[in-house]
Amino acid sequence: LSGDRNSISKAITIVENKDEASSALMKVLFLHTGKAHVVGVTGPLGTGKSSLVDQLVRSYRLKGEKVAVLAVDPSSPISGGAILGDRVRMLEHSLDPSVYIRSMASRGDEGGLSRASKDTVRILDAAGFDTIFVETVGIGQTEVEIVEVADTVIVVLMPELGDEIQAAKAGLVEIGDIFAINKSDLPGADKILYNLEPMLSVKELGWKQVAVKVSAKSSDGMRELVAFIDAHHDFLKKLRGSSSLPTSNRWNQELVERISDLVISDLTKRLPKDLEFIAAIEKLAKKEIDPDTASRQIAQRYISGK
Amino acid sequence: LSGDRNSISKAITIVENKDEASSALMKVLFLHTGKAHVVGVTGPLGTGKSSLVDQLVRSYRLKGEKVAVLAVDPSSPISGGAILGDRVRMLEHSLDPSVYIRSMASRGDEGGLSRASKDTVRILDAAGFDTIFVETVGIGQTEVEIVEVADTVIVVLMPELGDEIQAAKAGLVEIGDIFAINKSDLPGADKILYNLEPMLSVKELGWKQVAVKVSAKSSDGMRELVAFIDAHHDFLKKLRGSSSLPTSNRWNQELVERISDLVISDLTKRLPKDLEFIAAIEKLAKKEIDPDTASRQIAQRYISGK
Repeated sequence: LSGDRNSISKAITIVENKDEASSALMKVLFLHTGKAHVVGVTGPLGTGKSSLVDQLVRSYRLKGEKVAVLAVDPSSPISGGAILGDRVRMLEHSLDPSVYIRSMASRGDEGGLSRASKDTVRILDAAGFDTIFVETVGIGQTEVEIVEVADTVIVVLMPELGDEIQAAKAGLVEIGDIFAINKSDLPGADKILYNLEPMLSVKELGWKQVAVKVSAKSSDGMRELVAFIDAHHDFLKKLRGSSSLPTSNRWNQELVERISDLVISDLTKRLPKDLEFIAAIEKLAKKEIDPDTASRQIAQRYISGK
Repeated sequence: LSGDRNSISKAITIVENKDEASSALMKVLFLHTGKAHVVGVTGPLGTGKSSLVDQLVRSYRLKGEKVAVLAVDPSSPISGGAILGDRVRMLEHSLDPSVYIRSMASRGDEGGLSRASKDTVRILDAAGFDTIFVETVGIGQTEVEIVEVADTVIVVLMPELGDEIQAAKAGLVEIGDIFAINKSDLPGADKILYNLEPMLSVKELGWKQVAVKVSAKSSDGMRELVAFIDAHHDFLKKLRGSSSLPTSNRWNQELVERISDLVISDLTKRLPKDLEFIAAIEKLAKKEIDPDTASRQIAQRYISGK
């Protein structure tokens, strides 16, 4: 709670390892969450999300804020990518006690941000960081899941992404609060902005999506981007003052996930001892039953909410 | 069942769309499965799996077999990759009525081979194809899941993969029955074979893993590869004659998955109407309860296998 780096790292390791202590830890920490502004940064591979986040860290440090970065690497084969990214960044910010950076591979979890990354955001929130950047590659489920942890979602695009971006658009345009067209020095930045603008709309809660050209390299447009982030933060603070609307949908999703995990974990333990299940496996091998019928029959007994 | 191409395509579309008819369809078809030899082909990106599969199709056609290919593209953003791969191949084999090729994107499913791809293999099996190649990129879960559908697993490697292959090795070495070092004309093919050989071991059922250098371009080594595939097929046939051992583990996994899906699908429908769930969401927003405690309390009532 006092922001001690060793304690933070230890707490994150506990939730990463799904340690027994993690339930008790998160229960206590939960009471101290809800102060940080969580900014999700996502987009296709190679759009320069990391450099942009580094620039944002610098901008928010200049405002005197404590800043944390959680980089979630969903495709990392075992650990290679994540660890490398971590080290490169550590060099730059390692001497600043008000910046905390952590990388996390989400491999093994179902295609995106894991329980551990959600709990890590809460740990960083409880530890007193004002702004927490959660960076992840927007492929598959992650682009949806970042909405579950982030208050503000920045979608990073760049010129010359071509068809790939077209394919990703459907999902990415929907989730973004702010669109950052990075590498604005490359030709085509204006074109992508021009193509994007008619797609921007007013989101559920009343926020009008905005787009801005930036260059993480030259810092062009960074001031505008920060202004947009702050404007969205203010917008949310006003909303929250009047109702709990923006958070209830997020709690809904997280609770469904958590309950599902508990139910499945129990089911997975029970089935190998379930006599009908054991019998079904023998029958399947002999083709006396088909897998669809067998699973429906057995599931019957486990579908029974009191 | 007579192998009519239009019927096969229609059946696959039915299972892909999770159409209502799919349960009834798969129930009938299931009785006609179990004849085909299912060969999984996996490995890192860029190892030339597709070209190798094309060569294998040619080899098995020369033996007079009916051959099907199912290419599962786990990373395909919406559809781009899968469709392209499909068309390139169609050109070559489109005039051969004894070859059926289908591509499938597994995006949206939990990181790998989906229910639809398993059912598709059964459809192709029932349709009378002698050998079915299931090709997929070995990233994340897919490398594990291919074991669930394939009788024989070929892991495709290539020289100069460098560190990436080192990272993938742990998972890939475990699942392969046969290792094909593709692009054997490139320098380093002998080195990779030399490094791989001490890692090969005798698998659970008694099969000794083998490795072979191949070139999908020049057809070098293809004869040996085919001989290894056939040897593994014979090995399995002998095993199956004596017991149902090799299939029971697969049924175990598939049944657990199917039952879990049914239970979760039911849970997801019930929770929004569950009064304690609704109350918990309000309490979470007010921090009167933490998500871990709330989900454990609610899950209690759904964990109740009779």
